[in-house]
Amino acid sequence: MKAETIAVGSELLLGQISNTNAQIISKALQKIGIDVFYHTCVGDNEERIKQVFKIAMERSDIIIFTGGLGPTMDDLTKETVASFLNLPLVLDESSLKKIKSYFDKRGRTMTQNNYKQALIPEGSEPIMNKNGTAPGVLLKFCGKIIIMLPGPPFEMEPMLMESVIPYLSKLSQKTIFSRVLKFYGIGESLLEEKIKDLIIIQSNPTIAPLAKMGEVTLRITAKAQDLETAEKMIQPIEKEIKDRVGEYFYGYDEERIEEIVAKMLISSKTTISIAESCTGGLLAHKLTDIPGISDVFDRCIVSYSNKSKQELLRVKAETIEKHGAVSEKAAAEMAEGIRILSGTDIGVSITGIAGPGGGTQEKPVGLVYIGFADLRNTIVEEYLFNGCRDVIKHRAANAALHMIRRMLETTG
Amino acid sequence: MKAETIAVGSELLLGQISNTNAQIISKALQKIGIDVFYHTCVGDNEERIKQVFKIAMERSDIIIFTGGLGPTMDDLTKETVASFLNLPLVLDESSLKKIKSYFDKRGRTMTQNNYKQALIPEGSEPIMNKNGTAPGVLLKFCGKIIIMLPGPPFEMEPMLMESVIPYLSKLSQKTIFSRVLKFYGIGESLLEEKIKDLIIIQSNPTIAPLAKMGEVTLRITAKAQDLETAEKMIQPIEKEIKDRVGEYFYGYDEERIEEIVAKMLISSKTTISIAESCTGGLLAHKLTDIPGISDVFDRCIVSYSNKSKQELLRVKAETIEKHGAVSEKAAAEMAEGIRILSGTDIGVSITGIAGPGGGTQEKPVGLVYIGFADLRNTIVEEYLFNGCRDVIKHRAANAALHMIRRMLETTG
Repeated sequence: MKAETIAVGSELLLGQISNTNAQIISKALQKIGIDVFYHTCVGDNEERIKQVFKIAMERSDIIIFTGGLGPTMDDLTKETVASFLNLPLVLDESSLKKIKSYFDKRGRTMTQNNYKQALIPEGSEPIMNKNGTAPGVLLKFCGKIIIMLPGPPFEMEPMLMESVIPYLSKLSQKTIFSRVLKFYGIGESLLEEKIKDLIIIQSNPTIAPLAKMGEVTLRITAKAQDLETAEKMIQPIEKEIKDRVGEYFYGYDEERIEEIVAKMLISSKTTISIAESCTGGLLAHKLTDIPGISDVFDRCIVSYSNKSKQELLRVKAETIEKHGAVSEKAAAEMAEGIRILSGTDIGVSITGIAGPGGGTQEKPVGLVYIGFADLRNTIVEEYLFNGCRDVIKHRAANAALHMIRRMLETTG
Repeated sequence: MKAETIAVGSELLLGQISNTNAQIISKALQKIGIDVFYHTCVGDNEERIKQVFKIAMERSDIIIFTGGLGPTMDDLTKETVASFLNLPLVLDESSLKKIKSYFDKRGRTMTQNNYKQALIPEGSEPIMNKNGTAPGVLLKFCGKIIIMLPGPPFEMEPMLMESVIPYLSKLSQKTIFSRVLKFYGIGESLLEEKIKDLIIIQSNPTIAPLAKMGEVTLRITAKAQDLETAEKMIQPIEKEIKDRVGEYFYGYDEERIEEIVAKMLISSKTTISIAESCTGGLLAHKLTDIPGISDVFDRCIVSYSNKSKQELLRVKAETIEKHGAVSEKAAAEMAEGIRILSGTDIGVSITGIAGPGGGTQEKPVGLVYIGFADLRNTIVEEYLFNGCRDVIKHRAANAALHMIRRMLETTG
C-alpha cells in the first residue's frame, strides 16, 4: 500500500514552522510496512488544496492530511475534501458533546465557529482528540483511505499512534525493520565503491548510504511478515558489510559518538581531561551533554591565548616560537600538560585554525592537530577540515571523539 | 512569481530526517517577496521524481530542488531533470577542479563516481559549494527557473543565501521587509498582552509574536514597492513597541546574543575569561563561534570536579564544604578566581545542576548561579531553569551572555 501526507497551513510555506508531522507519520508507517512515497505542504487555499488532493487520489492508497481542522475561517481541510468528493458535512454528536464539555470545564462559552469542528464528511468516522477540540476524520472512499488529523504535533501524534496506526497495521500485511550502521573516516563514495555489488543485488533487504557532517551511514531495511524474520534477514548483510569496511564502523542507529565515548569512559572508569584551543570548549560541551560524565570528566581548559597555553598547560615558549601554537608539538604538550596537571588517565588536546582569518599558505584554515596522551604514549593526528568556522569546530570536536574511541579500543 | 520546493531523498520519506530545508528556503524567499505555494518530498526514484517535477513545471515559475546531488547511484536529481528536459549532462571544468583539489589536499584518491558530481545539465550554471564537493545548479528553461541545491543544510544554506537569493531578489518586483525585535526576560503572553491592541489594528505592517527557547521575538513585516518605503513603514510601530516593552529588548533579526556580546567586548577592548561548571564549556563554545573573539577571550576553565575548582580557580575548600559547589559563594569565588588568575578585565562563572541526577529538595535540578567579576565588583545572580539536561545547559549559557551584556551596558 502506498501512502502520502499532505500538510495544510500557510505558516509552513512562510517558513514559520517545519513540517515535523510528516517525519512522525513516515516513521510510524514505515514500522508497519506501509511505504510513504510523497510529502506535500500546501497553504490555506481551497483551490490549491483541491489540486493537491486530486493528485494524491490518483497516485496513493492512503492519504493523511494534517492541519486545517481548527475553528477559524482559514481551516479548510474537511470542507475541501468533502466538496471534492461531493459529500455533505454532517454533525457528529459525540464530537459536539466533547467540544461542549471542554468549554464547560473551563467555564468558557462555546462560540459559533466551534460547532464547525464537530462537522465531518458523511460516511466518515471521527477520531478522538484528547489534547484539543478538533476531532480527526477517517474516511473510506472508492478503495482509498483518507485520514485527517490536526496540525499541532502534540494533538496529532497521540491520535496517530493510538487510533490511526492500530487501524492501518491491520490492513498492512508486512513489517519493515531498519538498522543503521554508522561509519567514520571513510568518504561516502569510497564506502559505496566497496559495497556497490551488494547494493545492486539487494532488493530485500535494501542498502542505502547517507552522508552527514563528517560521517557516513548505511541503512539496511528488510521487509517480512514479522519483526523476528526481518531482523534475521539483516544479519548476513550486516556481517558482509562489516567484513569489508568494519574498520570504519563505530555504532548503530541514533547513537551519537559522544554517547559512545562517554559510555566507554564511564564503564572502564577512565578519567579524562581536555585542553581545547580552536574548538573553544565544544568538545567538553559535547561530552558533558551525557548524564553521568561527571564520574570521569575532571576538567577542560580552553586555552585561547598563547599565554594561557603556557601558564595552564606548560606548553613551552620555545615550542610556540619554533613550531607555532598550531603544531604537532604544541598539541602533544597540551595533551600531556592537561593530563599531568589534572592527574587523569588520559588527556586530549585540540589546536587548529577555525578561520575565517589566521590561515597561511603553510597552515591553512581548517588545519587541526588532535593530541591524545595516556600514561605510556602521546599520539598526535593531523587533520584538514573543510567549511566555515562553526563547521570546522564541529568536525574537529567529532574527530577528537572518534580518536578517543579508537584509542580506548586499542589500549582497553 | 510562484515558487515551490522539491526535496529528494528516501531518508525523508522514511522519517529519518525532517525537511528543514523547505523552511529555510521559504523564509528566505518570503523576505524578497516571492510566494512559496508548495513543498514536496519525493524518494530517490527516477520515475517519481519525474512526475513531481512535471507537476511543478505546470504550476510554478521557480522550482528549487534540494538533495540528490551526491556521488552515489542513489543521487538522481540532475540526471532526472536533464532527462525530462532532454538536455545532455556536460562536464563543468571548474567544479571538477574543485573536487580534484579537495581529494588532493587530503591525499585521497578521487573515485570514478566523484566525476558524476561535476556534471551539470547543458546550458546551466554551477553554484559554488564551499562546504562540500557537490556544486549546485542554476538552470533557466522556457521561462522557468530551476535550481538544484545539495541536501545537507550546512551546505545548502550558504549556497542559498550567498548565490540563489541575490539572484532571485533581482527578479522579484515586490519587496517584503521584516524586522525581528528580540526580547529576553519577558514571557510571550505578557509581551502579547502589552501590545495586543497594536497587533489587532495592524494589517500592513503586521506584528507577529513567536517564542523560542528562553526568548520571545516580534516580527514586524511591511509590504511595499521598494525597500525604503517598507523600512519607513516599520519605524513608528517599532518605536511604539519599544516605548512599551523596551526594557526587555536586546537585539534585531538573526543577531545572536553571543554576537552582540562579542561585538561589545571587542569594540570596548574588554578582555574576558570564563569558569564553567554545569554548562561544560558551552558558554566558551558559543563565544568562540564569533570570528575575532581571540582578541579579547583569554581562556575558559571547565572545572567539573570540586578538586579542579580548588586547584584552578582558588575556590576555598571551606566554601564547598559549607555552601556547596552550587552556591552563590562558589560562583563569586569562581568568577573572581578566573579573572585574577588570567589577568582579564572581567571574569564570568556558571555553576549549577544540569540534571537529570544530582538535584535535592533544597537545590533542585535547574538551579544555576552566574557570577560576574570586574575590578570593582562581583555580582551573582540565581536562576531556576526548566527542561532537560541540554536545555538547561543552553538556557544557563544564554542567561550568562545576557548578564554580560547588561553589565557591560551599565559599567561601559
